[in-house]
Amino acid sequence: MIEALTAYQQQNNRILNAWLDRLPHQSQTLIEAMRYGLLLGGKRARPFLVYATGQMLGCEQNELDTPAAAIECIHAYSLIHDDLPAMDDDELRRGQPTCHIKFDEATAILTGDALQTLAFTILAEGELAQDAESLRIKMIQSLAHASGAHGMCIGQSLDLEAENRQVSLEELKEIHRNKTGALIKCAVRLGALAAGEKGVQVLPQLDKFADAIGLAFQVQDDILDIIGDTETLGKPQGSDQELNKSTYPSLLGLDGAINKAHTLLNEALQALEAIPYNTKTLEEFAKYVIERKN
Amino acid sequence: MIEALTAYQQQNNRILNAWLDRLPHQSQTLIEAMRYGLLLGGKRARPFLVYATGQMLGCEQNELDTPAAAIECIHAYSLIHDDLPAMDDDELRRGQPTCHIKFDEATAILTGDALQTLAFTILAEGELAQDAESLRIKMIQSLAHASGAHGMCIGQSLDLEAENRQVSLEELKEIHRNKTGALIKCAVRLGALAAGEKGVQVLPQLDKFADAIGLAFQVQDDILDIIGDTETLGKPQGSDQELNKSTYPSLLGLDGAINKAHTLLNEALQALEAIPYNTKTLEEFAKYVIERKN
Repeated sequence: MIEALTAYQQQNNRILNAWLDRLPHQSQTLIEAMRYGLLLGGKRARPFLVYATGQMLGCEQNELDTPAAAIECIHAYSLIHDDLPAMDDDELRRGQPTCHIKFDEATAILTGDALQTLAFTILAEGELAQDAESLRIKMIQSLAHASGAHGMCIGQSLDLEAENRQVSLEELKEIHRNKTGALIKCAVRLGALAAGEKGVQVLPQLDKFADAIGLAFQVQDDILDIIGDTETLGKPQGSDQELNKSTYPSLLGLDGAINKAHTLLNEALQALEAIPYNTKTLEEFAKYVIERKN
Repeated sequence: MIEALTAYQQQNNRILNAWLDRLPHQSQTLIEAMRYGLLLGGKRARPFLVYATGQMLGCEQNELDTPAAAIECIHAYSLIHDDLPAMDDDELRRGQPTCHIKFDEATAILTGDALQTLAFTILAEGELAQDAESLRIKMIQSLAHASGAHGMCIGQSLDLEAENRQVSLEELKEIHRNKTGALIKCAVRLGALAAGEKGVQVLPQLDKFADAIGLAFQVQDDILDIIGDTETLGKPQGSDQELNKSTYPSLLGLDGAINKAHTLLNEALQALEAIPYNTKTLEEFAKYVIERKN
């Protein structure tokens, strides 16, 4: 699994680098910080899901480069802004100083802003397969829906409001469905959209799969925040507890959270069983989500 | 001129309100802050330019509602982020507390992020005239180009790096061409794009017009920062000097800056003369740019 992730990661980095190279004012701090935030480390789980879903449905890799690059820009921007002192105030990300530590706060804010815009530039201008116009628009709609006040941003807002108080399991699910889940679901959907009608037909099953692994991703993150070590995680262990955040282990206990992750894995695998294509890569990814150590 | 601005402002607000009403979690702080940042005051110069340019070329008002709403979302997000403590650290905007003062910094960062996304949702989903698919994509390309590391964001980055040092007139122009000019030019272009082939034919002249008023807008802002009063401006007078920013009056003297504004007005009016449509509204707007008191 790690090798497959690495291969797609390298492909994704090549595409992202080419987009960054096309920007003017290459020597400016903003461009340097965009490169830093976008290319330094990261598992590339979302690009992986775009590629794995699209290729399962018969797309060529180069038909998927554009949505895979765009979604990683959104993810990278969200990490940079989430790490800001006014938000989660994190100094370490992917084992490196966060953007506002490496540069400064103003640069980190602007870098996130510009990476969000770059995501839409990439979807609006990047190479796609035929019937590109209506496909492009659907992809832009899908990415914007997952990123903004319908998805990731409202999730982050709900999460901030939940700090320092006990939330219910339902509330926690709603936070993560938006904060992490929406973009993971979007990654799978972008891969499906690229495949046209074939993708539309299996979208309900893919959505079920993505909902389950999206939540499992978060449950495992919460577990690793307790049992992981800072070096492997690339970020400080125990940071959720420090912020008094409600997590799956704090609501269900550690064993309960581990059980929850396995239940979600089973849901994901069941959803894949109803898909009449070779779902092996997606299955392996689902297992990886709850077995990973960082 | 003020009445025309007000009429378009009201139309723009209606459209923006309808988009905000469609968001989930209406009672959340994020949505409240988006409404606050987007609808409280503001001249709506960019939506005005979309409407005035498009209608000059024969578009109906409702064909322009979508791009006018989208560009105002980008403008509003940029103000919210520019006002943050790490950026210009302003407490007053449009005569009201800035977003991070009214709410908090984390909310202000997220609100800007979500408003940027909303701009692309609006362009990707909003009502447009026929031939909508290719028009939509061109509009999204244009707005993304003007907003990100090709335009507004790099302008803000250049501006931050220019604080506390003397810049040349050429550097100052490059800062403002990106920071303010790119989005004003985009507003005119979105109006022209909506008109199809007719718009394409006059685009070179419209670009000249927009370049001139975009820079004039900034020159006049610099002048008002010296001669305006805080109450009329809706923001603290003298804030550029406080940040040790190079401005047109600091480089050219106050009289020199006033002359520069008039030269730019003449350039704008000359560009309009070569356009074979009724350019009266755009002419009046150009005059308003350098006559306005806030």
